[in-house]
Order: sequence, then C-alpha cells, then structure tokens
Amino acid sequence: MRSTPSRDDMDTGERLHWVDELQSPLLTDLYQLTMLQAYVANDMHGEAVFELFARRLPERRNFLVAAGLEQLLDFLETVRFSENELHWLREHGHANERLLEYLRDFHFSGDVYAVPEGTVVFANEPLVRVVAPLPQAQLVESRLVNLINFQTVIASKAARSVQAAPGRLLVDFGMRRSHGSEAALLAARAAYMSGFSGSATVLAERLFGIPVYGTMAHSFVQAHDSEEAAFEAFARSQPDNVVLLIDTYDTVRGAHKVVELIPRLRESGITVAAVRLDSGDLLALSKEVRAVLDANGANDVHIFASGGLNEYELERLIGAGAPIDGFGIGTDLDVSSDAPYLDCAYKLQEYNGQARRKRSTGKATWPGRKQIFRRYGSDGVFAGDIIGIETESREGGPLMTPVMRYGRRLQTQESLETLRERAQVSLAALPLPLRSLQQSAEYPVEISLGVRNLAAELDRMTG
Amino acid sequence: MRSTPSRDDMDTGERLHWVDELQSPLLTDLYQLTMLQAYVANDMHGEAVFELFARRLPERRNFLVAAGLEQLLDFLETVRFSENELHWLREHGHANERLLEYLRDFHFSGDVYAVPEGTVVFANEPLVRVVAPLPQAQLVESRLVNLINFQTVIASKAARSVQAAPGRLLVDFGMRRSHGSEAALLAARAAYMSGFSGSATVLAERLFGIPVYGTMAHSFVQAHDSEEAAFEAFARSQPDNVVLLIDTYDTVRGAHKVVELIPRLRESGITVAAVRLDSGDLLALSKEVRAVLDANGANDVHIFASGGLNEYELERLIGAGAPIDGFGIGTDLDVSSDAPYLDCAYKLQEYNGQARRKRSTGKATWPGRKQIFRRYGSDGVFAGDIIGIETESREGGPLMTPVMRYGRRLQTQESLETLRERAQVSLAALPLPLRSLQQSAEYPVEISLGVRNLAAELDRMTG
Repeated sequence: MRSTPSRDDMDTGERLHWVDELQSPLLTDLYQLTMLQAYVANDMHGEAVFELFARRLPERRNFLVAAGLEQLLDFLETVRFSENELHWLREHGHANERLLEYLRDFHFSGDVYAVPEGTVVFANEPLVRVVAPLPQAQLVESRLVNLINFQTVIASKAARSVQAAPGRLLVDFGMRRSHGSEAALLAARAAYMSGFSGSATVLAERLFGIPVYGTMAHSFVQAHDSEEAAFEAFARSQPDNVVLLIDTYDTVRGAHKVVELIPRLRESGITVAAVRLDSGDLLALSKEVRAVLDANGANDVHIFASGGLNEYELERLIGAGAPIDGFGIGTDLDVSSDAPYLDCAYKLQEYNGQARRKRSTGKATWPGRKQIFRRYGSDGVFAGDIIGIETESREGGPLMTPVMRYGRRLQTQESLETLRERAQVSLAALPLPLRSLQQSAEYPVEISLGVRNLAAELDRMTG
Repeated sequence: MRSTPSRDDMDTGERLHWVDELQSPLLTDLYQLTMLQAYVANDMHGEAVFELFARRLPERRNFLVAAGLEQLLDFLETVRFSENELHWLREHGHANERLLEYLRDFHFSGDVYAVPEGTVVFANEPLVRVVAPLPQAQLVESRLVNLINFQTVIASKAARSVQAAPGRLLVDFGMRRSHGSEAALLAARAAYMSGFSGSATVLAERLFGIPVYGTMAHSFVQAHDSEEAAFEAFARSQPDNVVLLIDTYDTVRGAHKVVELIPRLRESGITVAAVRLDSGDLLALSKEVRAVLDANGANDVHIFASGGLNEYELERLIGAGAPIDGFGIGTDLDVSSDAPYLDCAYKLQEYNGQARRKRSTGKATWPGRKQIFRRYGSDGVFAGDIIGIETESREGGPLMTPVMRYGRRLQTQESLETLRERAQVSLAALPLPLRSLQQSAEYPVEISLGVRNLAAELDRMTG
C-alpha cells in the first residue's frame, strides 16, 4: 500500500486503492451534488442552520453519550476536492461547469456548535449545529451523520458495560467483527471515552493513546505440541505480560497446568498475571478455576473472561458472584448489536434568517436554533432538560458550545482523557433508574414554549 | 487532509490523521504481536493452515453470500511495516529486537484458497483458507476476519431484499448510518454484488463502477419559499434526473403540485422521471399518489420509496400491491440491523503437517484442510453439500479454489459485474424454502467421514 502514489498525482483511470480514498469528499450521497448544482445555479448561498439530533432513543437505551465530534471537526477543516475528483465528476456527468467551479474552491467556512464529547444526551436534543452558506452546510451532511452516529452508538453502548461492571477491567475486543477499518479504530476510541480500560486494537494506542491489552489465541496453544509447552513458551517470551488462555481443551485442567507451571516460572523471576476463559459456563468455570488457583497459592493470579459477552452477561455474572476481574467485550460492543444505529437526522432549521420546519408524517422537526438547558438537583443529579431557542433565557446550564468559527476550530483539541473524565462525571449524574440496562421511565425533556410557538407560527405560514 | 505528509515521511510523535492510518498493519489485535514474539523466539515458522468459517448462521438467515475476498487479497499483497511503525512498537514495548527484525522484512508469502465472491455458502463451510508460515498466517487474522465478516454480512442481507422485490430498482441509501467510511463504501459494493441496482454513495461509482442514484433531501424543499419553487428549480437544474421528493409537507398535495408542474416543464423539454415518498403509510400513499399521477396523464412518472425500509417491509408492500417501482434501502441494509455480524472464526486446522483441533465447549472445530463439495439436482438447484478433506474424492463441484500463491494473486481481478452474475446464478439455484425471509429448514451440509475420523483421531491423541 505504501507504493501507492498520493491521491493528487494519480491519473484518473488508474486503479485506485480503496483505503486511500476513504478521506475523499466523494464519500457522500449523490443527492448532495444534485442539490448543490441547483443551489449554485440559483445563487442560494444564504446562511443555513442545520441541526443533528436523535428522533428517539433506540430500544433499551435510556440515554446517549455524545461522541465523534473530534473526527467531524477534522473532516470539516480539511474537506477539499482534488483536480482528479473534479475531472471525474465532469466525465461522469455528476456536475455542470458552474458546480465544478464552485467545488474547485470549496472549503468549509461555517460555524459549528456542539455538545462536547462525553456528555450524556437524550432524544431530540441537538448534538451538532452547523451554520454555514447553504451549499456548504448541505454538502457535509452525509459524512457528518456517518461520523457522529457511529461513535455515539458505541459510546452509548460501552457506557452500559461500564455501569454493569463497576471497577472491573473492561477491554474492547471487537476489531475483527467491526464494520471495517474505521469502525474498528473509532469503536476503540468511543468505548475508552465511556470508561473502558482499553482496547486490543494496537492502532488505537498509536493514534489515540488508548492502553492496549493482548494475550494469546487458541491457535497459539494448538500450534504447540502440548498446552503446557504453549504456556511456558508464551511466559518466557512475554515475561511482563503473562496471561494464559486455558480453555482450548479443558478449562479446569488448563488451570491445573498453570499452577504446575508457576513455581518453574518463579525460578526465572516470571509471574503469571492472569488466566483467560473464553468459552463455556463462565460463572461455574470461573469459580472452579479460582478454587484451583487459590488452593495452590496462586491467589494473586487474576481471572479474565471473554467470549460472546455484553452488558447483560456482565450484569448476570457479577450479580451471581463470578470471581472474574476483567472482561474482553467484542462483537456486541463494536457493532452495538442490540441497537446498531440511531434514528438521527440532520435537518434544516433556518435559512436566510427564516426558521424552517419539516412536517412529514412521524418525522416533524422542531424549528430554529436550539439550545439544551439542563437543570441539576441539589445532589448534582440531572433534574430535567429543556430544549429552547438559543436566545431564550432558561434555568440550567446550556450544553451546546461554539466549537468552530469560520471553518477553524475555536479551541485546541481536548485530550481523550478529558473527554473520558467528562463522560465519567456526566454518567455519574444520571438519575438512578436510567442506569438500568432495561428501558426505564423516560428522562424529562421539555420543548420550550418558544420552540412550540415558532413551530405553530411556521405551520400557519406554510399551512 | 491532502497536506498530510505520506506516512513514511512522518515523524513519530507528530499528530497522525486517523484516516491516513487505516491501512496500517497496526490495525490488528495486540495478541497477534505477543504470539508472534513467541513464535519468532522459538523459530516456529512451520507451515500453518487456517480456515475462516461461520460457526452458525445468524437468526433468520438461511444462507450467506461470500464477499470481501478482493479487499482481503489487496491487503495480503500489500501489508508491510514502516520504519516509523517499527520505531513506535519498540518505544511502546510491543516488540523485542528479534520480533522487530522479523517485522521489518514482513510480507505475506503464503497461499490462499477461497470460495469465490458471490457464492452462496452455509454454516461451517470454509470461506477462506490461508496456508503460510505460522507467524504470517497468524498476523493477518484480525484484518482478514474484519474484511470478510463485514461484506459477507451485507451481501447476505442485501440478497434478501433482492429476493423480496424481484424486478424492482433497489438502491443502497445507507452511507450516513454505516459504521464509518470503509463500511459505507464496502456496503455499497456488497449490496451491488447481491443484486442491488446501485447506491447513493458517489465514491462507490468512482472506485467500483457501481451506478449511483440521487434525488433531493427535505432541506432542499425547505430552503425554498414553496414546494413548487423547489420542484421547478430542481428540475431545471437537473433536467436529466428529475426525481422530486413530495413528502416534506403533505404527500398527496405534493403529488398534485408535481402534475401541475409537468406541462410547464414539458415546454422546456424536461420530463419528470419519478416522485419519491419518504415517510408515512407508504402503501396507502403510493396508491393515492399513483391515482393522482394517472388521473393527470402522468402515467410514466415512477414512484420511488424510502424511509426505514428493509426486506420485511418490501415483502409486505409488494405483497399488498403497492405501486412502487423502486426502493431506497438505507440503515437496515448497511448495518444489517437484524444480524449485524457473523459468528465466524479463523481457526488453526494444521501445523507442520499435523492436523489440529480446538475442543473448547461449544466452539469445537473440524480439523484438516477442507473442501466444500456441492451437489445439484437435475433442475440445477442445490441438493446438499459435503464438507470433506481437500483430498477426498466426493461427488459435486468443489467450491474452494486457489486464489493466491506465494503471496501473489493467481488470476487478474474479477470484475464486480462477474461477481454479481455469480451471485445471481448462485441465488437462483437456492432451494425455494431457503429464500423465505424467515428461518426455514436447514440446508443439508454433511461433515464427511474423513473429517470425522480425523477429529476422532486427534481427540484420542490429545485426549
């Protein structure tokens, strides 16, 4: 892949490598270009206001954790069309000359307001507001939704495991069944933000500083002539990270082999940190394995479990007293299998100073530039939100803040640790019933009178 | 993004852009590196045979469509470590000097056998077999599973919509809720392979030649002072592609506005191709809209529908006689919401000429180098498969073929059209009950006596 020429040097027609093109502005829906052609033809460059929000929470979700803003701002700061892309658009009939001219100079010069990453939010609450000339605000829609939807889905899912297993080590194991490369990488980021201890995905440490964890696969054990030989070879090769997978043939017999190995390793100054269980009845097996370890003086060897886990399983295992110190959560986390998407929308709320409203059956939107006002009880717990017009003066901390002006970030990038702390604080302030893994009573989110009046006024005008 | 220096020129420590790093070999699970360190330390470079297969079909799936091989071969041909990556691994304690030396020269030099893309397959059937020195075959696991799992999930999901809506135009609309950029792009590819007409994702045409479709968003209508003005502006700007979204305020009134506009456009030589419905009761509304169009001589204007669709909705709408000519299928397709992953595994089947078997509870594997033998009835319909040892002589066409030798592709890349034709032929040969959207009786897949004997022998040896 390294020998691929840079994108701008590449002749159209040459075979393009797909991974090199994932940053292309052509990763968008065609209708953005068809609409832009009309906007540009009719000089519709007035200021547009779009907001992204979830219409409703997915089943079994009582809250969301906002995530993905950092990657969105990266995208907005850098989105450009190359000459090759413009040439291709022309050749394939996707842009007339006037649109091509517009796209040649395209860069995002608008303002962005957003709920900071790591903040708990609810249905209808705007996560992001874009204020920009109409064609700009429109063109960025597809990737904007793509970036915010995914990480918010994963951060929200991950927070549930963190709540189900307080104080345990939780590691993202899901790369292989993530939906592609970007999903694998950004799932690790979103899960860490919501309180996971780290990820198995090495690139997540390289790019985001996320702690990575890794042990061995069954193939490692199978490739050796015996389980004992595999354990010893691993321990001697990784003396600082001895976590042994003991379920390849028989979990309890595997535990016995570990305790037999421990004294021999001790002579070389090597200690076994943990054993990993990856199959079978994890509750029963973890108890048996703990007993074997403790009976042989290996009280300091931890038990780590993986294999088809999710927050429901964590709650069950911990509730039943499974002596498991850490968990690898894979597929169910990285695809958020019980709720793999948000019913979210990026909707025009104002154009040329005039509020706008969509009234489609079941998909009506609240118009105007909105703000989230959150009140807190004396115990610091969320007491209710109001979605009001930005300029309304309401009780409670406004959650949306300006993050980009004239197409440039307003502040330096927040560290992932800062976002993680914010999520921890925000999750700790959730009303207790909302921490349930089952659907609870809905958190009170009120639409202000100002917003309702504006909607009614628009309905009369366009009636 | 264009100003980012190429990866190899970049100093470690400089901020890396995540999209530029998605092709990195560090997009892997840490345990691959920990295992490799032990393999390299102990000179375990013997020939390993791994196979990837689905342990069982997801709920409500009666078959899978194999997909993702092309991207896997791209990955295997190009995977390399850069000096910066090696430097980073050393600095972060993820590789000792001997492993670094090994990784510096790393390239994949093995053989690959696979079921060609577009082929229908079932549980336990190997999709891919890798034969390579153990550390190579091990290191590529994470990305291999990541690539094959995702596209196979989407191709299998898409085939269901194609079967539910024969002869209708089906367009992938899912980019925005795909799990990231690569998922968006490769979902378009997998859906097209399984018989979708095309995608809304522009980059899918640029990279894969997939036809793209696009109309307008509600924001386009909202940005204009009236729906009529929006329709006319769009038609005049896109005279060859006039598809008008009519549900922003009131669908049936929108249809009336379209028929009023048609004569005025005709004077300019512009015809309206279709209207799009995106909300409400699509069955009732499509009938009402069809009536409005037909009553006004607009019999040639097609009706296109979108909004929360999936194969179940298609079956219901078409079964009830909805006069809808084409469908945009978005989120449910691109995240395969009812089955967002395969329970698949990449398992060691042989090392150093010796067959291997994992026996973990509920996760036991069939050992050896296997082949799929498929028999056909006189009507050309699949009559049953046998999973046998590669060298067993069995009735029926073997499905796995060699696709890579010594790390290089054996044949030139098949065109996506070829894969699409293969899928069409393969899907047409499915026994009728398996085409149901509900779980049907299982297709007969037999494990040959040769495989069973080998497994029993291994169990005795490692017993």
